[in-house]
Amino acid sequence: LTDRIKGVLAPVVTPFLADLSPDRERWLAHCRWILSNGAGLAVFGTTSEANSLSVEERIDLLDSLMESGIDGARVMPGTGCPALTDSVRLTAHAVKRGCAGVLMLPPYYYKAVSDEGLFRSFAKVIERVSDARLRIYLYNIPPVAQVAITLPLIDRLVAAYPDTIAGIKDSSGDWPTTKAYLDNFASPLFDVFPGSESFLLAGLRNGGAGCISATANVNPGAITRLAETWKDGDADQQQAALDTIRGIFAKRPLIPALKAAIARYSASPSWAALRPPLVKLTRGESDSLMAELDSAGFSMPGLASSGRKAVAH
Amino acid sequence: LTDRIKGVLAPVVTPFLADLSPDRERWLAHCRWILSNGAGLAVFGTTSEANSLSVEERIDLLDSLMESGIDGARVMPGTGCPALTDSVRLTAHAVKRGCAGVLMLPPYYYKAVSDEGLFRSFAKVIERVSDARLRIYLYNIPPVAQVAITLPLIDRLVAAYPDTIAGIKDSSGDWPTTKAYLDNFASPLFDVFPGSESFLLAGLRNGGAGCISATANVNPGAITRLAETWKDGDADQQQAALDTIRGIFAKRPLIPALKAAIARYSASPSWAALRPPLVKLTRGESDSLMAELDSAGFSMPGLASSGRKAVAH
Repeated sequence: LTDRIKGVLAPVVTPFLADLSPDRERWLAHCRWILSNGAGLAVFGTTSEANSLSVEERIDLLDSLMESGIDGARVMPGTGCPALTDSVRLTAHAVKRGCAGVLMLPPYYYKAVSDEGLFRSFAKVIERVSDARLRIYLYNIPPVAQVAITLPLIDRLVAAYPDTIAGIKDSSGDWPTTKAYLDNFASPLFDVFPGSESFLLAGLRNGGAGCISATANVNPGAITRLAETWKDGDADQQQAALDTIRGIFAKRPLIPALKAAIARYSASPSWAALRPPLVKLTRGESDSLMAELDSAGFSMPGLASSGRKAVAH
Repeated sequence: LTDRIKGVLAPVVTPFLADLSPDRERWLAHCRWILSNGAGLAVFGTTSEANSLSVEERIDLLDSLMESGIDGARVMPGTGCPALTDSVRLTAHAVKRGCAGVLMLPPYYYKAVSDEGLFRSFAKVIERVSDARLRIYLYNIPPVAQVAITLPLIDRLVAAYPDTIAGIKDSSGDWPTTKAYLDNFASPLFDVFPGSESFLLAGLRNGGAGCISATANVNPGAITRLAETWKDGDADQQQAALDTIRGIFAKRPLIPALKAAIARYSASPSWAALRPPLVKLTRGESDSLMAELDSAGFSMPGLASSGRKAVAH
């Protein structure tokens, strides 16, 4: 169990070049910065705009990451797609590349599908990948995917594939939902990750494994510190400080706001680019975000500047 | 304008082999049967489980269809995906293959996206495909995609790309929505297709171009007849007869029910297979469907049997 991926993971944002192709070098640099701040890499999540990338683009980026010498034990790529064949291909590739696990969306095109249909989706992927190293973390994000991971579905999956179904990321944004996953399933063999550091401390106090949070792209050091010191006396204060920063990002379009912040703190305006249908913050929105972050004393220490000198704060 | 694709189109259901790969021969035979009944081919729609297929699987099937000698003027493949690069690839391929147009979902992973973001999605596809032959039919299906095609979005797209934005399929299932598209946009250069034959006659009386309907997979002859004779005295009777058959399918899980009917009428049980997350009807559900269809005097004349002799009705 010592090699299980735990703690804080960032769904790494994906920078784009002017032609909207992934900016590999800048992406690798951001992965290294996140790792240097103690967090792991949940590449190809919702925050990564992974569903705005083709299967080939994801495979190509993961190859670059693993060839850069990063430890697969710290990597959990997202691999769930609407098409069974795509999910199988991405999942098999992640296992072959030595990733610690995969974060798997349910097939999300059809709505109001049955748990039977979802069970068969996950089962088919597991059977086709057919590799004892595979560890699947289910991905519950009903505000986006609409298709939810229910408790009875987890029951069935864990019973059928106890060595493979390794946990869940809950991005419901709803503590009772996260708590129900924790109460029913958290164990040394099933890790529950809240989908935001807002529930990091509450999660850890209820058997959680850490968190997988968009904001770990910009605030990984502080979030990781709480995950490592949550039994200390200042834990509630740490949580409050995380909530302040999270709140500043979360009241704006989250992915554009994260990219805007990285663009400003790295003095690399092109970091702000997104693939449609997402659009970047306006200059005014970005200025307002930065003003709030400055007032809160926020910074991203050690973030590599690319292009001109980093803006002083 | 004479080469514009109009009338009744079927979003062709995709049959699968035992390993859930597409059953190419059976699919081509079904395409031919639909064409022989007067309807065109909106391959790779929602009913086709297209979003459960990889990009390569769709390209491969379309290549087979076009190489089989079918007239591209009768083909409108679905090409809209969450990933811009996938939509571009599928759309460019469809144009290259001589298809009359493409039916394009908006990128549907992210929810509550802006019209600005959706405009840029369609614009990027158009600019990257960069082919004067491209005709895009927008695909509004909020019950599934959640992301809707608004009237202001169409306004912007038509203004920017008047030669390319050729129409819309409305699967809202809501007549006022279809009527608003008709009232605001129907013209010789913008075809409005209701997403069900339930609105075929009402649509035609309000300037509609026909319909693109799941049930055209099983009842294409009768639906096409109404589209061709809607000014005749028996049009309302024809519409009522179509509604009866549609109603029998629509009160069940629609795609599994269509496949179950084709399986029974062609005496080819394997036609009933679906990719997860969709699941086929139980034997009891299928029997009940067939009993209702028999009572309604429904049949699928000329449907090729594959395997054993067709069941008599």
